Amino acid sequence: MSDVLTISQVNELNYEDFIGRFGNVIEHCSICAAAVWRFRPFHDIRHLHQAICSFVDLLPNTGKEGVLRLHPDLAGRLAELGSLTQESSAEQKAAGLDTMTPEEKQLLKDTNSKYRDKFGFPFVICARQNKKEAILKGIVERLEHSAAEELNIGIEEVKKICMLRLLSIVPDEK
Amino acid sequence: MSDVLTISQVNELNYEDFIGRFGNVIEHCSICAAAVWRFRPFHDIRHLHQAICSFVDLLPNTGKEGVLRLHPDLAGRLAELGSLTQESSAEQKAAGLDTMTPEEKQLLKDTNSKYRDKFGFPFVICARQNKKEAILKGIVERLEHSAAEELNIGIEEVKKICMLRLLSIVPDEK
Repeated sequence: MSDVLTISQVNELNYEDFIGRFGNVIEHCSICAAAVWRFRPFHDIRHLHQAICSFVDLLPNTGKEGVLRLHPDLAGRLAELGSLTQESSAEQKAAGLDTMTPEEKQLLKDTNSKYRDKFGFPFVICARQNKKEAILKGIVERLEHSAAEELNIGIEEVKKICMLRLLSIVPDEK
Repeated sequence: MSDVLTISQVNELNYEDFIGRFGNVIEHCSICAAAVWRFRPFHDIRHLHQAICSFVDLLPNTGKEGVLRLHPDLAGRLAELGSLTQESSAEQKAAGLDTMTPEEKQLLKDTNSKYRDKFGFPFVICARQNKKEAILKGIVERLEHSAAEELNIGIEEVKKICMLRLLSIVPDEK
């Protein structure tokens, strides 16, 4: 954590460095950071978060689905291959997903696959705010929802993930 | 060009391979390909192009600006560093931007910088459809436009670049 920034330092970044630091606060969606660049200076990290969330809210539903689709399956193939983004890898570890039993892993895999088949996008949850038991329970429950409900819930989880990623770059001063 | 696809092969790709192939048809904006995944099967490559263009048109203006900002400066710092995406590098070469005289390079650099200062996003032009002389002339002319005009013109250029990138993956069967 030696290279955290203050909000003043954020406001002094040039565009390339800004995208370099914030391009992945929404997984694989650097357009979110690129879109809010025009709103500098940011008063604090919550202001930046709010600008990104407003942008995500303005996306058409196909775009919101796209945001979810750019997220990896929890404990899925990318995790097995070691090909997760740095952020996702740390988040999945924090939830204890790397310590699941083979049975838990299989349950998550099967339920993920049902979820994706039903909704057309992957199950997204803020892993840092949930332990593996809550995640396993959550996915089974959320599988019962409608696609519209899950699109909203998934996007709200994306915003929570985003806030925690932002705070890991710019710790809250309060 | 040994690994071009037919549209049937495109429609058979799984999501990860689809994003792997089409994730950069809009520079650094894989959300565009992720958003249109739900519209498979595509009748032909123009159908896929049209789906992507419709998605881009639905973006709020901040998102359209973000799309432009994710494009590199022509013959800019990334080109000098050899850090362009494969696609951008080939396109800038095709326009002859790698054969500019030092004076042309300086003119493009200065005008790019004025353009970015005026509009808050970089000058985007379909380099494959323009030679360096037309690009140098174009940027000087477009610098006179309003930001709203340039947002539209830039996005239309992005769509042309997208079509050519799509055709390099799925050559037109007609």
